[in-house]
Amino acid sequence: MSAIFGRKGVEAIAAVVAVRASNAKRHFPRYGPSAMSDAQSDLIAAAGGRLGPKVVVTDPADIEPWLSDWRGRVHGQARAMLAPSSTEEVVEIVRLAAEHRVPLVPQGGNTGMAAGATPPADGSALLLSLRRMNRIRSVSADNRLAIAEAGVILATLHDAAHEIGMRFPLTLGARGSCTIGGLTSTNAGGTQVLRFGTMRALVAGVEAVLPDGSIHDGLSGLKKDNRGYSLDQLLIGAEGTLGVVTAVALRLVPAIAARAVAWAGVGSPSDALALLRWLEARTSAIEGFELVPEDSLALVLNHIHGTRPPLANKQPWNVLIEATTADSAKDISAELEALLGEALKAGLIRDAVIAANEGQADAFWHLRDSISEAERAEGPTLAHDISVPVADMPDFIGAAAAQVERAFPGVIATGFGHLGDGNIHFHVRAATHASPDWYDREGAAITRMVDDLVTAAGGSISAEHGIGQLKLAEFARLAPPGRIHALRAIKQALDPLGIMNPGKLI
Amino acid sequence: MSAIFGRKGVEAIAAVVAVRASNAKRHFPRYGPSAMSDAQSDLIAAAGGRLGPKVVVTDPADIEPWLSDWRGRVHGQARAMLAPSSTEEVVEIVRLAAEHRVPLVPQGGNTGMAAGATPPADGSALLLSLRRMNRIRSVSADNRLAIAEAGVILATLHDAAHEIGMRFPLTLGARGSCTIGGLTSTNAGGTQVLRFGTMRALVAGVEAVLPDGSIHDGLSGLKKDNRGYSLDQLLIGAEGTLGVVTAVALRLVPAIAARAVAWAGVGSPSDALALLRWLEARTSAIEGFELVPEDSLALVLNHIHGTRPPLANKQPWNVLIEATTADSAKDISAELEALLGEALKAGLIRDAVIAANEGQADAFWHLRDSISEAERAEGPTLAHDISVPVADMPDFIGAAAAQVERAFPGVIATGFGHLGDGNIHFHVRAATHASPDWYDREGAAITRMVDDLVTAAGGSISAEHGIGQLKLAEFARLAPPGRIHALRAIKQALDPLGIMNPGKLI
Repeated sequence: MSAIFGRKGVEAIAAVVAVRASNAKRHFPRYGPSAMSDAQSDLIAAAGGRLGPKVVVTDPADIEPWLSDWRGRVHGQARAMLAPSSTEEVVEIVRLAAEHRVPLVPQGGNTGMAAGATPPADGSALLLSLRRMNRIRSVSADNRLAIAEAGVILATLHDAAHEIGMRFPLTLGARGSCTIGGLTSTNAGGTQVLRFGTMRALVAGVEAVLPDGSIHDGLSGLKKDNRGYSLDQLLIGAEGTLGVVTAVALRLVPAIAARAVAWAGVGSPSDALALLRWLEARTSAIEGFELVPEDSLALVLNHIHGTRPPLANKQPWNVLIEATTADSAKDISAELEALLGEALKAGLIRDAVIAANEGQADAFWHLRDSISEAERAEGPTLAHDISVPVADMPDFIGAAAAQVERAFPGVIATGFGHLGDGNIHFHVRAATHASPDWYDREGAAITRMVDDLVTAAGGSISAEHGIGQLKLAEFARLAPPGRIHALRAIKQALDPLGIMNPGKLI
Repeated sequence: MSAIFGRKGVEAIAAVVAVRASNAKRHFPRYGPSAMSDAQSDLIAAAGGRLGPKVVVTDPADIEPWLSDWRGRVHGQARAMLAPSSTEEVVEIVRLAAEHRVPLVPQGGNTGMAAGATPPADGSALLLSLRRMNRIRSVSADNRLAIAEAGVILATLHDAAHEIGMRFPLTLGARGSCTIGGLTSTNAGGTQVLRFGTMRALVAGVEAVLPDGSIHDGLSGLKKDNRGYSLDQLLIGAEGTLGVVTAVALRLVPAIAARAVAWAGVGSPSDALALLRWLEARTSAIEGFELVPEDSLALVLNHIHGTRPPLANKQPWNVLIEATTADSAKDISAELEALLGEALKAGLIRDAVIAANEGQADAFWHLRDSISEAERAEGPTLAHDISVPVADMPDFIGAAAAQVERAFPGVIATGFGHLGDGNIHFHVRAATHASPDWYDREGAAITRMVDDLVTAAGGSISAEHGIGQLKLAEFARLAPPGRIHALRAIKQALDPLGIMNPGKLI
């Protein structure tokens, strides 16, 4: 995902969006009768009659908050928001959509980074909100599984797992509002991927309503099942284009008994990766391993109130390390401390400090989590959510940053984040005193260069955020034609009427 | 998979097969000119001209060994065997197959349990052997990845990983002949699934030639990649019906430094599962956990030369436990012993013994691995490779065995194997002195009953062996119509000409 930060950038985007919205209004007056196609009117009437006003929401004030992506960059239109509270109601809605040829845009917490849940601007689709499907159907320590409906909020699931001594390990910044259905449909990642994987690894099964109105029920959560193509895996990351995810069986792991958080200084990204490999050969407890360039740390210390450097001396690069254990008898802090002591002797790190308590641990994480905010305070920044093979990432960061800085004099390029996943946030900061139109002048060209470099390195231009609307053009430009052909064929096969989230992903 | 064991059963099957073979010969004389359709002749001539005689094998003696499944139960016909040694040659072959509308049957080590790699009996398809694509393209401890071509034998990959201090954890009985392509296409399982998962979890990416001749290259082995539907996951377990897997990126884990193997007596399958959960809450080292009924152990001790009971007294049920560590400083035997001591005090087990050395460890595994052989020695047995949700398996074993024994008086039904995966081998043994036609009289009805019970329990009639040809009818009978419809639509979308492994899976 390419994003612009900084006040001026946001203003520029807001201006573009305002123009788009006024265009949209001109051609498709928002709630006036002339905008309601007969097909939509018929569907809304039929759905209202069968499912009632709780499910069929037509008050513009209720719909308005869900028509833009959460960053406020993309704005859509929708005549109605359908809000079913059961799988059966979703079936009813999908059948009506097929009958009337009216496309649906499934939406959960609306926290996506690629505008995949924002309806088209021409008002041709209706919103399908899954937020009322918010029951946790079951949660079992024996099965190590929870079954949560699509609209369950991630933090709610965390709590439910915690209550039975278990844990759902995936977490991310939007955990208070993002939903299980959205996390599944975007194959979300987050900060604990290193040990537990993305949603693809954590989903044990999916219940979904397919475009023909049939229910795919993969919720039995079988650990072994070889009865043909995996529809579960096909629906994960499909961004709602192949069906509506209504419930998900999720793998649980034992609750954390204790964690240890350390900050270490290393000479280079390459040294950081060597340290990770060395640690992983000695313990399976490493759960977080975040790369932080000294430049990013300096910005945080400069701009974010109350932050302090963890180490006495400046280091070329830093890593934040989190180790956890489910065994309350284990002293995980002592274990990590001993390992880092050995690493220091072996010359793998230059210095390190272990958080003495939870407050210090949170402070370390706060440094890491504040990088984007500190960059915003410094000036406009272009963000890229990219991945390359893990072992190639250290070289990639150096080479790509050098090339971008050479091609666009004055910018500062750097990479930070999930080094162990081969996934970093490759940020390009405008030169000091860059003109307000920097993003418009150079943004697309910089992103194209980054995407080209990533593609040449065998990497992905969307590591964890998906394609949605925002990366559609770059995906089409860079994907092999055979892949585009295969994806379109699958889309056409399962959704021949094109009623599932049109204009997204493919 | 349902299989008949026992000498008489095998003879009965052999007779059926002989009849089928003679029928096949009558209608499709094997290598006579009249059997060669023009299309096949054209393809063979074109391929021979472009790729040479090493790739285009037409000598019946060379083809013959690959026309039957490895159990010798299903026999097919093929005019030629195409044996490419590179992805480019596979592309050439697939393009010719599309051009001439001649179906291909991909085949690796031919060790499948569902006859998924056996060509149709009518000679309408050609064999596509991947065995000459047997290079390990790379193996990296840094990336924790190996890239192996489809024809690489599993044991060869094990050795290559071992040489760099790593390990590919999936293993199974046929490791000396099964291939990476076949393991991927059947989403194979095996004995280490508990900790590391099936192929679906171990495959980091797939290279395949799609039916339109385009190459899907998923080999970069990215840990995070959200660029649309996962073709990798779609090809895993597709049994060669959506394309030809030519190479696979496989996840490696650190090599084992030491293992500990124990044998414990428990009161019931339910107690066994409780023990597993208790152990898993205390250690992440448990890698094997196999359930062995006392009845099965008795058969092994009775029929298999040189076997001895591990425990002093008979136990209602037994479990074989394997724990491993990659840390050479760790005393895994002492750790497992301490845990089992605690478990004994807590009343979780009745007795236990730890193997004192590798020889004893092998002897414990030999008991487990000899169950099928001991059953064969006892008499005809029907085997079912099934799964249900893990927590439900203890009750399922008891209830299903009771129901089958009630419906078919005299038979003995029991379940053993991968309890922690919810996957057991549910075997039904003929009554003592059953007549030779027992399998023909009762086999299909027993299998139908077992499959119905599994389906009612939300389970799978194919936990790890796939559908192939042998389970096609039961799959079609028991799968929801929506699922069959979706699978057919995907097949039709990606293989509109039907040239990929016809008559398998769907």
